[in-house]
Amino acid sequence: MKTIIKNVYAYLPDGTTPLTNILIDKDRIVGVGEIPEDFHAAKNIDGAEHFAIPGFINAHTHTSMTLLRSYRDDMALMDWLHSIWPIEDKMTPEDIYWGAMLAMAEMIRTGTTTFADMYGPYMERVAEATLDAGLRGVLCRGIIGVADGEKKLQSNVDLFKEFNGAGDGRIKVMFGPHAPYTCPPAFLEKVAKAAQELGAEIHIHMHETLDEINGSLKDYGERPFSWVEKTGLFDGKGTLAAHCVHVDDSDLAIIKKHHIRVAHNPTSNMKLASGVAPVPKMLQQGICVALGTDGTSSNNNLDMLEEVNLAAMLHKVNELDPLAIPADTALKMGTEYGAGAVGIEGIGKIEKGYKADITLFDMHGISWCPRHDLVSLLVYAASARDVDTVLVDGKVLLEKGEFKTLDVERIMFETQRCADRLTK
Amino acid sequence: MKTIIKNVYAYLPDGTTPLTNILIDKDRIVGVGEIPEDFHAAKNIDGAEHFAIPGFINAHTHTSMTLLRSYRDDMALMDWLHSIWPIEDKMTPEDIYWGAMLAMAEMIRTGTTTFADMYGPYMERVAEATLDAGLRGVLCRGIIGVADGEKKLQSNVDLFKEFNGAGDGRIKVMFGPHAPYTCPPAFLEKVAKAAQELGAEIHIHMHETLDEINGSLKDYGERPFSWVEKTGLFDGKGTLAAHCVHVDDSDLAIIKKHHIRVAHNPTSNMKLASGVAPVPKMLQQGICVALGTDGTSSNNNLDMLEEVNLAAMLHKVNELDPLAIPADTALKMGTEYGAGAVGIEGIGKIEKGYKADITLFDMHGISWCPRHDLVSLLVYAASARDVDTVLVDGKVLLEKGEFKTLDVERIMFETQRCADRLTK
Repeated sequence: MKTIIKNVYAYLPDGTTPLTNILIDKDRIVGVGEIPEDFHAAKNIDGAEHFAIPGFINAHTHTSMTLLRSYRDDMALMDWLHSIWPIEDKMTPEDIYWGAMLAMAEMIRTGTTTFADMYGPYMERVAEATLDAGLRGVLCRGIIGVADGEKKLQSNVDLFKEFNGAGDGRIKVMFGPHAPYTCPPAFLEKVAKAAQELGAEIHIHMHETLDEINGSLKDYGERPFSWVEKTGLFDGKGTLAAHCVHVDDSDLAIIKKHHIRVAHNPTSNMKLASGVAPVPKMLQQGICVALGTDGTSSNNNLDMLEEVNLAAMLHKVNELDPLAIPADTALKMGTEYGAGAVGIEGIGKIEKGYKADITLFDMHGISWCPRHDLVSLLVYAASARDVDTVLVDGKVLLEKGEFKTLDVERIMFETQRCADRLTK
Repeated sequence: MKTIIKNVYAYLPDGTTPLTNILIDKDRIVGVGEIPEDFHAAKNIDGAEHFAIPGFINAHTHTSMTLLRSYRDDMALMDWLHSIWPIEDKMTPEDIYWGAMLAMAEMIRTGTTTFADMYGPYMERVAEATLDAGLRGVLCRGIIGVADGEKKLQSNVDLFKEFNGAGDGRIKVMFGPHAPYTCPPAFLEKVAKAAQELGAEIHIHMHETLDEINGSLKDYGERPFSWVEKTGLFDGKGTLAAHCVHVDDSDLAIIKKHHIRVAHNPTSNMKLASGVAPVPKMLQQGICVALGTDGTSSNNNLDMLEEVNLAAMLHKVNELDPLAIPADTALKMGTEYGAGAVGIEGIGKIEKGYKADITLFDMHGISWCPRHDLVSLLVYAASARDVDTVLVDGKVLLEKGEFKTLDVERIMFETQRCADRLTK
């Protein structure tokens, strides 16, 4: 099926934003520019007064945690974890599904087309929700090695075998060893072996807090990146490392050596008081740094435009340099670099040959006026609530603010029901 | 005229959020709770599934600067100023009016009911826009003493005489000496005298950047707060000091001694890389710290909910303390403390006897689900786009998203016209 998005301002890979047309055939962008006379579209989307960007790529989240949005905030980390964990232990497959479905709805509503998720148990229900919603999902079973590690590793193997490549390739499965402080070296060796046998990539939390570094120095006499490297975990097909807040030059050398991709989570790092990752330095060194929301419990939403905005803002004040991360770089972190981070070729750009994963912002609102610079308006002034149309694989998931694949009323009803049962 | 907001969740001064009714008579809240049998309202507002808060108080902005939203970003401060100033020099009274009107529309749309503005020339046109819009405005003429200072001071005197108390008291006029680095001591003495003769308060930028402190040490051998205190500027009716980013214990002692109120601008301080103000410390010392957006050129919007969110987030990561500023404190900074900062009694709370300056958030959206804690949802998950009804002085300015006092289409048309003429 052919689709045209007509007369739209489009954010192109070179940073320009021309008024143009986007031609789509099935799941791919087949042209950006003039409409050939012989291109007959079955669907025409009026792009007038809209700004098209590649759909956001959320490089690190825990979708089903949306069930716990606003359940506990403003607490010290350990107090918070001890109030969250007992609730998570009670989650049924149904809770996991509806929590994920609420996240799917929120991601579509705010213009995200691809997300990298780590959670569990019952990740097969997240896969199911992803397929139902029509999003592109990079899923892994969060594996805490110190408790039933073998069983969880096996469920990640099962998830891979059942869902990797499902939905015309919309689902990709990685392996999800939770973090160095929850997975001892011998266990990480097993995870590395299992992932490498299947040709699967790794998604792991690394160097999120100072406590994590200090704990590792105490337990192993070295920093996490240093001893995890020795387990072979980074020797496989690729690694997506969430956070990387506290990284020194030795850590950066390991990240570069193994082409590890970083998911930076500015909101979560601010809210949990984890610290500020040296993102400008990482970008200067050619490291792929993408953006993630982390789970809603530490955010508390899945709004990637907020992460793009904060990536531009937080590092300016942290480095006392108003040029630290310009708007265009922040937007690339939320799109093009996100594609690199999740290891999927052919997404993250509006360009011929790329997947038709596209988000349209309605520019009729006050904060888009006056119109001097579209990228600046998007990153510094706009809201994800301006998103009104979203396509994944050329399929329309949201059109003029209406969901095409999801029954949001029901999702919100079921989610509240699950949340009430879990917390009351 | 009597109005009832029925069946609404209301944020009360004690931090609770009961389901209740808000009773309004003319410009005042006359009750919160049960509806007396003899209370016959001419207007009923259905508050079901809505969250009522005191309207936001933007304690520091430059409204007409919205004309330059997205005109220049990601530049070093002096490069930026040198590209902005020539445009500002060209502004006509008409530009000032339409720039302010666009700001009025955006403030109403995002739930702000009171704002403190510093700009000029032609501040009488901002007063006019404020009266037209129905907002509560605390206006001053930004006085740069080193260029035509006397003339600007006189125009602030004229502004006071013509508009202070206008619009049934909705307009309050302060004096606006721009900053210590643009107003020499002898000139600040004159401003102090003029303001004190009229019983007017002061609105001034203080200690925004390190360069400002260093320049003062070089020029005067002391920090700005120290020598400005000697001019008598702080001896009058009251002072609203914007920024206060770089303040040491000696500065804090002066702030406390003169009951100076601080307008903290987290977005602007981040975007311009000014630094992080010691807000938790100031609050602990009992200093009144409110929130402002600063001008849209350094933000780039007038969204006070973003400032509330960032106040809660920025100081957590800056102090590496997840309890640094909880959601409830941040919300008070944007409302109750804002009232203190602008020196207006009887606003900033939903409480009997207070002005009916109220903002309603529609809670039907995805980011309000599930519903564990309303304050947490508002501060960490929601968007100002959820604002759907706004009252000032009991008068409805926005209802179900529709403007009642402004023609937004025309405002956006005129603003773009002014912006194009100024920048092309």
